[in-house]
Amino acid sequence: MLERIRIVLIGTSHPGNIGGVARAMHNMGLTDLALVAPRCEAISADSISRASGADTLVHSAQVVDSLEEAVSDCSLVVGASARSRTLPWPMMTPRALGERLPEELQHSESRIALVFGREDSGLSNAELQRCHAHVHIPTNPDFSSLNLAAAVQVLAYECRLSWLSHQDQPASDDDEVQPLATHEELEHYFAHLERTLIAIGFHDPATPRQLMARLRRVTLRSRPERMELNILRGILSATEKAAGKVAMGQRSSDESSSDNHH
Amino acid sequence: MLERIRIVLIGTSHPGNIGGVARAMHNMGLTDLALVAPRCEAISADSISRASGADTLVHSAQVVDSLEEAVSDCSLVVGASARSRTLPWPMMTPRALGERLPEELQHSESRIALVFGREDSGLSNAELQRCHAHVHIPTNPDFSSLNLAAAVQVLAYECRLSWLSHQDQPASDDDEVQPLATHEELEHYFAHLERTLIAIGFHDPATPRQLMARLRRVTLRSRPERMELNILRGILSATEKAAGKVAMGQRSSDESSSDNHH
Repeated sequence: MLERIRIVLIGTSHPGNIGGVARAMHNMGLTDLALVAPRCEAISADSISRASGADTLVHSAQVVDSLEEAVSDCSLVVGASARSRTLPWPMMTPRALGERLPEELQHSESRIALVFGREDSGLSNAELQRCHAHVHIPTNPDFSSLNLAAAVQVLAYECRLSWLSHQDQPASDDDEVQPLATHEELEHYFAHLERTLIAIGFHDPATPRQLMARLRRVTLRSRPERMELNILRGILSATEKAAGKVAMGQRSSDESSSDNHH
Repeated sequence: MLERIRIVLIGTSHPGNIGGVARAMHNMGLTDLALVAPRCEAISADSISRASGADTLVHSAQVVDSLEEAVSDCSLVVGASARSRTLPWPMMTPRALGERLPEELQHSESRIALVFGREDSGLSNAELQRCHAHVHIPTNPDFSSLNLAAAVQVLAYECRLSWLSHQDQPASDDDEVQPLATHEELEHYFAHLERTLIAIGFHDPATPRQLMARLRRVTLRSRPERMELNILRGILSATEKAAGKVAMGQRSSDESSSDNHH
């Protein structure tokens, strides 16, 4: 289970923090580290020294350009966030996150990502809106900014506790569990949805009014299965097709005749 | 409650770790830091930089020569330990420690200490035997040594969660709660006990065979109240008196007559 939990660091500035994160992960049995557009050399004297023996994780870290690439195969993406946002997102505590993991990772294909932002500014709103949920580590309100490695330590600790308490549970049968849509599948869906909404004149990217953010939120909250997402995409294709015909000035009589093709 | 939880660091070598601990504490709302015989300058560029705004805690840290001084007023002393010991001590998980805190700190005089050892070698057996219990942070058995600040982070996080979940509980009436013996009172008792055992010929410090360690363990496990400890010390005094008389060659008939003085 622990090997299918990925720690994703975005835009890290200090190599020491990458090393500290690697050590915290390895201490708790996590192994999968991805660095999105780091603003420093990942492999340096500082990072290796702070890793203090966990340098394998630093060396094997996947370095990618975008959050998309880092989490495309994940069915649950959780962003660590200290700030409350104008558009509130589903929030969970680190403990609740831990408790959810065994179920989330029930299907052997499932992977989850825990995403951490920059040392100075955290995650952007766009990044947070790519997450299913946000996790907030309870802190002193007068001094809430945790060191990056410390934040990873707390979440990795909750992951390990959860794993330990589910060690004796019987493994589930993959056939009984429907795989959830991955992040990549969801993002294809959202892109498709946005195209469709523009096509039908419902959405104007020039005045977005958080429409896509709100649709993301409601969709992500439902945790769609892959099969469900395929249905939704089928609906979008049908909508586009219908809208395209209208746009091309076709008559409604043509539409009804096109039903025969199905 | 959080202000009565003291973090005690013994023989710390790296000022950066002191700063990291201060930051982790301040993030979780803890304020009381004691440094026992640090092997580095507590206040340095490294410690202030890692404290990252929590330097008040570094500046106000109490620096003392011995563990005794650091914990003398505490009624519960818990040592962080990664190693299992030849003489097993009461163990608890970080979560169980957190859950115990509200009860432990019910009396407004109560203070507790969480004791952390050296970066390279942890706590000595003698130091661990001065603790009521040991707390073990669950880790990857192949890579179990946590960074000092990371270990403090995990325990401080559990302290904060426990405090948050007891925020709404009514405050207890101190009159209803018997104060527990402090560490200093317990140590006076153990010194007294050892003198007495030597006096009665039961204990030979030259061949200790863990006798005192075993007596410490059973006594600390019972969490004696101050009043109970006074009774135990009264018994020791009476024993010494009786043994002294025997040593001076007095007859048992004298002993019974001495009862009249009470």
